[in-house]
Amino acid sequence: MKTGEDELVQRIAKALAFRSTGRLTLGMGDDAALLKPRLGFDAILSCDWFLEGRHFLPRLHPPDSVGWKCLARAISDIAAMGGQPVCFLLSLGLPERVVNQDKGWTATWLPEFLRGLRRAARRFGCPAAGGDTTQTRQILISVTVIGEVQTGLATRRSGAKPGDRIFVSGTLGQAELGLQILRSGAGPSPQNDSALRKHLYPEPRLALGRWLARQRLAGSMMDISDGLSSDLPRLCEASRTGAKIEAAKLPTPKAPVATSKTHFDALRLALNGGDDYELLFTVRQKDVARIPRSFQGVPVTQIGEITRDRRIVTVGQDKTIKPLFPRGWDPFRKNNER
Amino acid sequence: MKTGEDELVQRIAKALAFRSTGRLTLGMGDDAALLKPRLGFDAILSCDWFLEGRHFLPRLHPPDSVGWKCLARAISDIAAMGGQPVCFLLSLGLPERVVNQDKGWTATWLPEFLRGLRRAARRFGCPAAGGDTTQTRQILISVTVIGEVQTGLATRRSGAKPGDRIFVSGTLGQAELGLQILRSGAGPSPQNDSALRKHLYPEPRLALGRWLARQRLAGSMMDISDGLSSDLPRLCEASRTGAKIEAAKLPTPKAPVATSKTHFDALRLALNGGDDYELLFTVRQKDVARIPRSFQGVPVTQIGEITRDRRIVTVGQDKTIKPLFPRGWDPFRKNNER
Repeated sequence: MKTGEDELVQRIAKALAFRSTGRLTLGMGDDAALLKPRLGFDAILSCDWFLEGRHFLPRLHPPDSVGWKCLARAISDIAAMGGQPVCFLLSLGLPERVVNQDKGWTATWLPEFLRGLRRAARRFGCPAAGGDTTQTRQILISVTVIGEVQTGLATRRSGAKPGDRIFVSGTLGQAELGLQILRSGAGPSPQNDSALRKHLYPEPRLALGRWLARQRLAGSMMDISDGLSSDLPRLCEASRTGAKIEAAKLPTPKAPVATSKTHFDALRLALNGGDDYELLFTVRQKDVARIPRSFQGVPVTQIGEITRDRRIVTVGQDKTIKPLFPRGWDPFRKNNER
Repeated sequence: MKTGEDELVQRIAKALAFRSTGRLTLGMGDDAALLKPRLGFDAILSCDWFLEGRHFLPRLHPPDSVGWKCLARAISDIAAMGGQPVCFLLSLGLPERVVNQDKGWTATWLPEFLRGLRRAARRFGCPAAGGDTTQTRQILISVTVIGEVQTGLATRRSGAKPGDRIFVSGTLGQAELGLQILRSGAGPSPQNDSALRKHLYPEPRLALGRWLARQRLAGSMMDISDGLSSDLPRLCEASRTGAKIEAAKLPTPKAPVATSKTHFDALRLALNGGDDYELLFTVRQKDVARIPRSFQGVPVTQIGEITRDRRIVTVGQDKTIKPLFPRGWDPFRKNNER
């Protein structure tokens, strides 16, 4: 007999179960999950699509990376608010071939996906609270993360002021580089591995986001998921400002090993590469000295300044000013597949 | 120029905006939404798929019904916990043809969908808090509803005890009948209209669910979304009991006007029809007299009894006992389309 929905839900619940925080009073298996709120905290709500053919390719992306990444990227939105994750809901659409273990990659896809998801859930302290499953032609994933932040400490996109300095965490464009390496089929090497890891197993910057919020150092903050050139205009739009980015200061990725270097454009990767899940935030000039150069091993780099002039520009080493156009990821503009 | 994601999000935010409850301190447009918890209440979390080709057909289902129903069915899970909705997140995958208004049905699909969704959001006091959009080949909808219930009052599936009486709200199988009428292309008539309305614009039983929870009258409760024959075993499994349903007592739908009556099987519809979003609950024998025959115009009917014997059976008028097999909606068992 074929697997029914109830049996599938039991498989998922079993694979994702781990010691609860005590605040989830009812997890998977009822109509809904119950969560005790925490006094003095606001709830943070965020959801993210992760779709076969659009955000991942089964033949390119290991299923445990799909599991890890679908949760990690949703949690990145919580980090960008200065919060911490509490639990998540998993909406999963699976083709019959994945549920009723066919030959080939489908046979092991589901358990490996769930293993990656569970690993991320443990890593970020964000247990599964429930979800919904249905049958679909392609694998569909939508993850909703519930987080929390002390009332009054949430960092929004709208708080940037002219004169504020702009910072980013980590290296920009490294995840995009990882995708290029993955596509090229290049073998492992220490340098390639960090880009591959960034693409396959991103780490939302929870500790940095929380620290910035608690110290009230970030006037505005968001995560870079679509690429700096697409995300910075969103922060500026919300804050009604412009921005000036110093191209030479951008933390660009290093050229990969064993791939064509003729096409390697570090600046373009840093400006337009998506999937980085780094933090973009602004700091008042008087507080700049309080921002460390790295936080728990993650570089923190000042890359420019918020301007009253609403344009968004880059300044080159030769002082030439160029407008920065949004050329990052937009599902409705490009026909790109990830 | 084609619509980008930011423009689409703005369109959605504008269409769904209405006076906030004051507890959503930050809605659409930032990384995530912020929600103030309510003292003495637990949060209820639930999500539901609603997919083109599986849960609705663009040529059969008006877009405003798709908007209404995707939210109403997710809210039904909140009703089943005895809670009230607070806000929802909308994960929307749209084909390019729907976003960049093509000819035919796609031109008006999105605004009408959003109108139906907004109408349901107002009706049930459940504003949009945020969401995620992406481009897909078919219309994909996943709705997450956040609700709340006074701490300690949530009604679960697992509280049924042998001897408890089983109740349902409304008429069972009427939504399935509505789908049959819709498919047959039968014209409007007072009798057909109520079944059609039930299929297209279901009303989650929020007031009844809340009343039962507050009065502590329901030992166990869930909503009937897949059909009684599929959902009752879930309640019994969670409660480690069986059940005996009196077939003659089931609130079955009336035969429709102007469709073939030879194939009309009211009992089968009531047992296996999906999409009803009625409440199924159990009441201790001593409390049965406190359950009204109707609640705010919605019939409430006693249909059977919870048994220690773990089988689930129907008893006919001639006292013959038959096992009740799950023949309701299961996305992984049938290849049915809605």
